[in-house]
Amino acid sequence: MAFDYESLIKDLPDYPEPGVVFKDITPLLGDAEGFRAVVRDIAGHFADRGVTKVVGAEARGFLIGAPVAYELGVGFVPARKPGKLPRATRSEDYTLEYGTNTLEMHLDAIEPGDRVLLVDDLAATGGTAVAQARLVEAAGAEMVGMGFLMELAFLKPREVIARETDVEVYALVKVD
Amino acid sequence: MAFDYESLIKDLPDYPEPGVVFKDITPLLGDAEGFRAVVRDIAGHFADRGVTKVVGAEARGFLIGAPVAYELGVGFVPARKPGKLPRATRSEDYTLEYGTNTLEMHLDAIEPGDRVLLVDDLAATGGTAVAQARLVEAAGAEMVGMGFLMELAFLKPREVIARETDVEVYALVKVD
Repeated sequence: MAFDYESLIKDLPDYPEPGVVFKDITPLLGDAEGFRAVVRDIAGHFADRGVTKVVGAEARGFLIGAPVAYELGVGFVPARKPGKLPRATRSEDYTLEYGTNTLEMHLDAIEPGDRVLLVDDLAATGGTAVAQARLVEAAGAEMVGMGFLMELAFLKPREVIARETDVEVYALVKVD
Repeated sequence: MAFDYESLIKDLPDYPEPGVVFKDITPLLGDAEGFRAVVRDIAGHFADRGVTKVVGAEARGFLIGAPVAYELGVGFVPARKPGKLPRATRSEDYTLEYGTNTLEMHLDAIEPGDRVLLVDDLAATGGTAVAQARLVEAAGAEMVGMGFLMELAFLKPREVIARETDVEVYALVKVD
């Protein structure tokens, strides 16, 4: 039987602003059985796709992406905010509700021939996922899938991602 | 034979400022064999200490701390910058070369009886490690060790940490 992820995700009504329900995943990550289930579930789903690298975005993407990379037996590549990576980078802007943000990846972190799995805690607008997919493709590598702990389906991240790439989007928890 | 970690850590002279040599660990984390060795080595060293939680600080502490927690079969607790955790927190200030910074932890993330391993990429001044140790002790739990990928021994982090706690400090790479 699948783990009951939602029992360990805390709903915080009116956070960070009125009308928004924030989903706090820290109790799930702090639970030995829950954390193991999240990592095994995402890694297991993509285990037969020949993944050579996992990519995840600062900071919460590291929490799940790094152990998924470890479980798959591949390296982890961080996508970071501007100025955090010390060597030459590629960068991609993405849109937020208000304004834009930028993600950077080291030029040599991913190479042609790599098969890349993107992992993040949350698919919301899909903006950070699309930015990372563009960085992976600009490096000449192939995206083979995207794995999320949670998908805010009402924000339609799958539609945004599908405009950019046809890779499979897999989410453990769907919030309608 | 131990993995040659240093072969995958890039020295960047005069970064971020003249006279400083920055140690870039991203090539090591991006290497399947290197990443696996780092996680196995730290987790293996503390495997018999009855660890119940791993704590790590935003953002690079997540990269190694989360997979070490996974390998040990325990939950991961993030220490974050102010305003990033959505529920009630404890906070601790720590000093940097210029000024101070703050780390926060959810009040209920760690409980009395927990046996906590701190994991981070870098022991430099020791400030973030001490702040996290205080947050763990304020929660009524016990620190059982600290595991780092790299120790900048010339900054004497062990002395700073030893003033606060007598737990074992373990580092895979020592930079004199």
